[in-house]
Amino acid sequence: MDKNMKQYLDKAEVLIEALPYIQKFNRKVIVVKYGGSAMVDENLKKRVIEDVTLLKLVGFKPIIVHGGGKEISRWVSKVGMEPKFINGLRVTDEPTMELAEMVLGKVNKELVQMVESLGVRAIGLSGKDGGLLNVTKKYSNGEDIGYVGEIQKVNADILWDLLDKDFLPIVCPIGLDDSFHTYNINADDAACAIARAMNAEKLAFLTDIEGVYKDPNDPATLISELQISEAKEFIEKGYIGGGMLPKLNNCIDAIENGVSRVHILDGRIPHCLLLEIFTNKGIGTAILKDGDEMYSNK
Amino acid sequence: MDKNMKQYLDKAEVLIEALPYIQKFNRKVIVVKYGGSAMVDENLKKRVIEDVTLLKLVGFKPIIVHGGGKEISRWVSKVGMEPKFINGLRVTDEPTMELAEMVLGKVNKELVQMVESLGVRAIGLSGKDGGLLNVTKKYSNGEDIGYVGEIQKVNADILWDLLDKDFLPIVCPIGLDDSFHTYNINADDAACAIARAMNAEKLAFLTDIEGVYKDPNDPATLISELQISEAKEFIEKGYIGGGMLPKLNNCIDAIENGVSRVHILDGRIPHCLLLEIFTNKGIGTAILKDGDEMYSNK
Amino acid sequence: MDKNMKQYLDKAEVLIEALPYIQKFNRKVIVVKYGGSAMVDENLKKRVIEDVTLLKLVGFKPIIVHGGGKEISRWVSKVGMEPKFINGLRVTDEPTMELAEMVLGKVNKELVQMVESLGVRAIGLSGKDGGLLNVTKKYSNGEDIGYVGEIQKVNADILWDLLDKDFLPIVCPIGLDDSFHTYNINADDAACAIARAMNAEKLAFLTDIEGVYKDPNDPATLISELQISEAKEFIEKGYIGGGMLPKLNNCIDAIENGVSRVHILDGRIPHCLLLEIFTNKGIGTAILKDGDEMYSNK
Amino acid sequence: MDKNMKQYLDKAEVLIEALPYIQKFNRKVIVVKYGGSAMVDENLKKRVIEDVTLLKLVGFKPIIVHGGGKEISRWVSKVGMEPKFINGLRVTDEPTMELAEMVLGKVNKELVQMVESLGVRAIGLSGKDGGLLNVTKKYSNGEDIGYVGEIQKVNADILWDLLDKDFLPIVCPIGLDDSFHTYNINADDAACAIARAMNAEKLAFLTDIEGVYKDPNDPATLISELQISEAKEFIEKGYIGGGMLPKLNNCIDAIENGVSRVHILDGRIPHCLLLEIFTNKGIGTAILKDGDEMYSNK
Amino acid sequence: MDKNMKQYLDKAEVLIEALPYIQKFNRKVIVVKYGGSAMVDENLKKRVIEDVTLLKLVGFKPIIVHGGGKEISRWVSKVGMEPKFINGLRVTDEPTMELAEMVLGKVNKELVQMVESLGVRAIGLSGKDGGLLNVTKKYSNGEDIGYVGEIQKVNADILWDLLDKDFLPIVCPIGLDDSFHTYNINADDAACAIARAMNAEKLAFLTDIEGVYKDPNDPATLISELQISEAKEFIEKGYIGGGMLPKLNNCIDAIENGVSRVHILDGRIPHCLLLEIFTNKGIGTAILKDGDEMYSNK
Amino acid sequence: MDKNMKQYLDKAEVLIEALPYIQKFNRKVIVVKYGGSAMVDENLKKRVIEDVTLLKLVGFKPIIVHGGGKEISRWVSKVGMEPKFINGLRVTDEPTMELAEMVLGKVNKELVQMVESLGVRAIGLSGKDGGLLNVTKKYSNGEDIGYVGEIQKVNADILWDLLDKDFLPIVCPIGLDDSFHTYNINADDAACAIARAMNAEKLAFLTDIEGVYKDPNDPATLISELQISEAKEFIEKGYIGGGMLPKLNNCIDAIENGVSRVHILDGRIPHCLLLEIFTNKGIGTAILKDGDEMYSNK
Repeated sequence: MDKNMKQYLDKAEVLIEALPYIQKFNRKVIVVKYGGSAMVDENLKKRVIEDVTLLKLVGFKPIIVHGGGKEISRWVSKVGMEPKFINGLRVTDEPTMELAEMVLGKVNKELVQMVESLGVRAIGLSGKDGGLLNVTKKYSNGEDIGYVGEIQKVNADILWDLLDKDFLPIVCPIGLDDSFHTYNINADDAACAIARAMNAEKLAFLTDIEGVYKDPNDPATLISELQISEAKEFIEKGYIGGGMLPKLNNCIDAIENGVSRVHILDGRIPHCLLLEIFTNKGIGTAILKDGDEMYSNK
Repeated sequence: MDKNMKQYLDKAEVLIEALPYIQKFNRKVIVVKYGGSAMVDENLKKRVIEDVTLLKLVGFKPIIVHGGGKEISRWVSKVGMEPKFINGLRVTDEPTMELAEMVLGKVNKELVQMVESLGVRAIGLSGKDGGLLNVTKKYSNGEDIGYVGEIQKVNADILWDLLDKDFLPIVCPIGLDDSFHTYNINADDAACAIARAMNAEKLAFLTDIEGVYKDPNDPATLISELQISEAKEFIEKGYIGGGMLPKLNNCIDAIENGVSRVHILDGRIPHCLLLEIFTNKGIGTAILKDGDEMYSNK
Repeated sequence: MDKNMKQYLDKAEVLIEALPYIQKFNRKVIVVKYGGSAMVDENLKKRVIEDVTLLKLVGFKPIIVHGGGKEISRWVSKVGMEPKFINGLRVTDEPTMELAEMVLGKVNKELVQMVESLGVRAIGLSGKDGGLLNVTKKYSNGEDIGYVGEIQKVNADILWDLLDKDFLPIVCPIGLDDSFHTYNINADDAACAIARAMNAEKLAFLTDIEGVYKDPNDPATLISELQISEAKEFIEKGYIGGGMLPKLNNCIDAIENGVSRVHILDGRIPHCLLLEIFTNKGIGTAILKDGDEMYSNK
Repeated sequence: MDKNMKQYLDKAEVLIEALPYIQKFNRKVIVVKYGGSAMVDENLKKRVIEDVTLLKLVGFKPIIVHGGGKEISRWVSKVGMEPKFINGLRVTDEPTMELAEMVLGKVNKELVQMVESLGVRAIGLSGKDGGLLNVTKKYSNGEDIGYVGEIQKVNADILWDLLDKDFLPIVCPIGLDDSFHTYNINADDAACAIARAMNAEKLAFLTDIEGVYKDPNDPATLISELQISEAKEFIEKGYIGGGMLPKLNNCIDAIENGVSRVHILDGRIPHCLLLEIFTNKGIGTAILKDGDEMYSNK
Repeated sequence: MDKNMKQYLDKAEVLIEALPYIQKFNRKVIVVKYGGSAMVDENLKKRVIEDVTLLKLVGFKPIIVHGGGKEISRWVSKVGMEPKFINGLRVTDEPTMELAEMVLGKVNKELVQMVESLGVRAIGLSGKDGGLLNVTKKYSNGEDIGYVGEIQKVNADILWDLLDKDFLPIVCPIGLDDSFHTYNINADDAACAIARAMNAEKLAFLTDIEGVYKDPNDPATLISELQISEAKEFIEKGYIGGGMLPKLNNCIDAIENGVSRVHILDGRIPHCLLLEIFTNKGIGTAILKDGDEMYSNK
Repeated sequence: MDKNMKQYLDKAEVLIEALPYIQKFNRKVIVVKYGGSAMVDENLKKRVIEDVTLLKLVGFKPIIVHGGGKEISRWVSKVGMEPKFINGLRVTDEPTMELAEMVLGKVNKELVQMVESLGVRAIGLSGKDGGLLNVTKKYSNGEDIGYVGEIQKVNADILWDLLDKDFLPIVCPIGLDDSFHTYNINADDAACAIARAMNAEKLAFLTDIEGVYKDPNDPATLISELQISEAKEFIEKGYIGGGMLPKLNNCIDAIENGVSRVHILDGRIPHCLLLEIFTNKGIGTAILKDGDEMYSNK
């Protein structure tokens, strides 16, 4: 067999190896929180969209939830707005909210465009469409930080109806309160709430870290599997800090409310989503139910 | 009968008068091009949204297509961008396109929000979602005026699927070309193309004029009905000028391609849509097929 | 604005006011017991049919149940039959039953015809069709009063199937017992049983009185809302007499078995149905669950 | 084998013989014009209803169209109405029309009741329900004979919708004109129009004669098969007279408009319908397309 | 009436007598275990297939489960294989299994062919198709008797899907274990497991005996009805022996798990299935729930 | 990046490369004629089944048509039957037909079993099931060669119904004539007829040769693309001989009757199907419409 042929056969084998995974996740909902470097680096961006599109084409039901943090900051400067802060937190006043919505809308349609260019039917939503995300005002230690919303209800029917018509929904985290005012929502929170409401099989966070560490200062302590009782213990013991704390709380919340598996993936690795789903290569940290094992019924 | 009761009975009679119209347009597609003053004045805005929502609730299938002209100009200034012109036409270069898309997206979701607040399921789309609007680059007398698109194909399936799931679609006129670049589209053109693709029963333009005049300088020459052969004659004779010319060409195009009736309505009159549909009060100018009469089979 | 225009705008406002009600009762079943003067006066008749047809067209699911008392009496005389009485009650012997069925059938198709003339698909049923109403013989204080039936079972599937095919069902109160003999049924009883079996949102009785009075001799004591515990108390205290007693018992029974709201309307007021549903004008007496308030979630 | 067993086996064989016919008419529409003696004699009545019910249960789609001639005459006398005649034809004035509708309605529900008692879901319709039969006034040699209608349009959707919900439709020949006035229709005409509109597989007339004779005075000339060109020839030659002439014209009309086979059956023979469909016993006269043979593809 | 006519009318009466049974079993699942003489005698074979095909055509949902015992033995000899025995039981080693599968497949398609020739859509399955029958290895008193399977799970979806597409499923008793090895299954066991999984209305065993006897040596003690507590008592008392014991246990198991009625029929009587279902002639023994009576609600 | 990680990323890239192909063949029917070495070598067998199962899982609609030549020969010897020949062709007499059907049935269920073991719902059919393949007797130069059938009609509904229920159909080439006798069919013919009847996107023959050669004696003359006019020219010029001639005629026939692309693949190359569909590696010979190019719209 010539070397060329060998290469082709290797490719065929890779496809065949994907077979049990394709079968396992057939028609399952997979929520992908898309953010961080993977949203800034054009190359990584393309990889993520390819991954999600492939998931859709082989029969899964992926839903993308994205943020737009850095792009919002860029526009705030561009427009020359003066940021206000309370307790060190940026206040989302009316003009900031307006601009944030515009930027998130732009990012949203850009993702739609990328998915469409790969031949898959995408639809871009904010939490306003079909009343998808209903929120109440969120306070930070009792202080008013403006139009920041806490999700009260996800109108999952909207997403089921769109999945039913074979759309790939792409959601930006904007919501409405009962008086139909606009609120910004933390994208991790939105992804988690949507995964819960859809009883998702998987919720995957694309982040800028390798995963959860026992000791954040020691890369060698990266944890590949974490059952939720362990996760809670870690939090109690104060191992978990910074941005990871709310994220891990979201993970625990998701697992306790019907999501089967949550993953904190390193979005800086190209195709990290495919690697997680189609190979037995551990990418980042998987949060599991107590008693579950990662590769048992993966 | 006391006076109070009399008032109530009068109200009941108004509802009953609507009966034949509700029946006539049951399950029919009605495309509303929403623009002009009716999009600026908060009071008129509310009236238009109430009208369209009512149409939806009584069983019609309205689709809103909107522009965002004045708001785009406001943001262009705000951001401090320098406008370029060719042949007196604004050039849509990349930064302008990006900003226009952001503004249109904002306007789009604001309309979604208003419809949702009235209890109807809306969904905001640009022509990117589901590949709704496919365009090619449009030139102005052979000059490159940037990312201005001419619609080649409307993917009507997307709209049918959303109507099927009982959404009220709200569309902003952004499209993609075959290389998946973003283009701005004239909102009148988009409304007309969508009405054609959906074989709409009605296409209504909300404008800032009373209608078509035989002599634009003489308000007394307002025409309430215009069969398309007359419309063509008017154009040939040079009676029609300014912004009305392309609009009237759009009307003719729509009627010749399957739309039953086109209306140029005065969007400055509150509830002009309801008045046109539910009463025999002539509002603005109706463009008809040759041989049709306005109130014959309305 | 000229006076004419003002009038049109007022009309538009009336339609817009109906919006929240149209939304609230969308796809809800509303059973209308049609009888009394509203069935005799040609003008009132037309109003009732217009009202029900409008309810159908704007998306509700009305079902009409009608009697035919006066018309039956007219035909009994016409044919020269000799009425028999027991305990002062007319006995429905075989010839009377035969004639009653003929008259009710005639009235039934006449109503179908009126609805059809307004462009809505009606279908006239007796309780024989599809085995809709199953009865047993009813005795009056142990005395045999002939073919008078008490409903044992409503075959609600029949009505759901017809609603599913977008018919407006019009039912006359004739039923079959287990041996397939024909029985006459009190129309109020039939309406109540059907409303229960369909879990109707509303059951409205068109009557010839203004509503329930605390003191029937004092029109000023008309009650606009009555929670069922109050209704029971009134009955116990003997405030309620005559034909109102069984009607009120029917109302209580309906509310206790899944119907949300029951109304005793004055059928002599034109469009009383529309007024009740689309305005906040109290027409007649509403029977509510304990704790409910009339205009809270109307 | 004992004699008893022999009998049982013979019964099984009869069922097995029905197999090819059950298969052939599976899901086919069969219109039965029910009238004459078979509607008067209680014993024959029961047989007809059993037959049609069996056809329904084994998977055919029968539709009954019935008249009520003798019963109408009986009631005209009973009520003491004075018949008017023009050219020897009874005039259907308003009171006659009213009574006729009542009687037909009574007969209609009686048939519904008989079918229901055999466990099959029947629904009784007049041509008013769902706008089933649209008519214009029919004149007799230019003379006004009152409310006698000629069918212009059959709204077949109504029947398809009811068949779809597994009802056995039973239709009485009453129709509405464009002004929604009530008209009486000849039952043969109604059956023929319905069979045409439904593209029925079979149209069977239950009559009081054995079939078509070459020579009406000679029973030996009974014709068992008649191709339509022969039928036309017979008519031209004047062989056909009396009530048979319009019936035969109806048969020809049906065959020329999509009905596969028309039968003139002797309704005085019990189970004539079953015999015609499930055996090769010729009952009455079959009207065929030219070139068809009766038992070729039966 | 001539004698010929009399005969036809008798036939019609037989069909009419079938009416209540056709109605009773409409859309009900009936599992027929087909085996014994009825599978060997060409004449009886034809009768069984006619019976099942008729059941299908009149709206029941029959499923055939068949064995192939004698034909397997014939081929074992033909191929010259040496049978092995343990405890007097034939051992199903690999070559025997292979041959058994081939023979059962042949018998299966032969039955398909017979049903198809009667114009009904049949499909032949083994328990491999769609993973219909999942088994574990069965031991005989702890001894390994080869590839003999015990059913663990019936994938009823497969059969519902095929019934939904109007197929008549014909199943041969082959199954797969969790490692996807092939096993032979006792046909009685397979029929019983399928009847349970489908909540069949009836399970009928075609056997070579008249039924269950109180005293197997005295034909006069044939029992026509047996409630399951009696059946259990008979077994305890040792009245039941030989091949009847496992069969009766299967019957009890079926009744206790959702099957309404089980019949042990004498397959040597032509059309025994039709006789059992369409007449009140007791054929063989019916196993009933305690308290049920045979002809009460048959 | 460590070497391990590199490997994983390469795998992800392979999956991504498959994306356009997965999209292109989404919901398309692909008929695979399975035979030759690929059916004998256990290793190759596993590869083919993996390939087809993968095609099913990623959303294609594959149908397998298989032969069983060598296995039939093996059994003919085993049973000790004496082969008869006419014109050098084996005669399919009744005993041979019986045995062939048994062997094909065994092979068929073995393939079902393999597909099931990969978690996909398979169903094994012969042309008898649902009357799938209707044949007439085929003669060889006028000589009777026994039960060899020529396909007259493919009942494609059967396959559409099974695809609709998400089965992977596996068909063995047995058919019935109008008298319901069993016939053997050439598997290539069956695959071709099925591909035509289903308007398949692709028909792929797994063979034991590399493809079509211009000069069969010179491996260097392998043709990778052949437009049908060229194919016909090759045949006329006598370049094509042996078993390739009828195969190539089948290819031409398929292309001329609605199949988009036919492939003669070398079944001895593992995963040849995947390679053909998911890579741009030319495997074997593709037969195209005139004017088509292989990789233009692949």
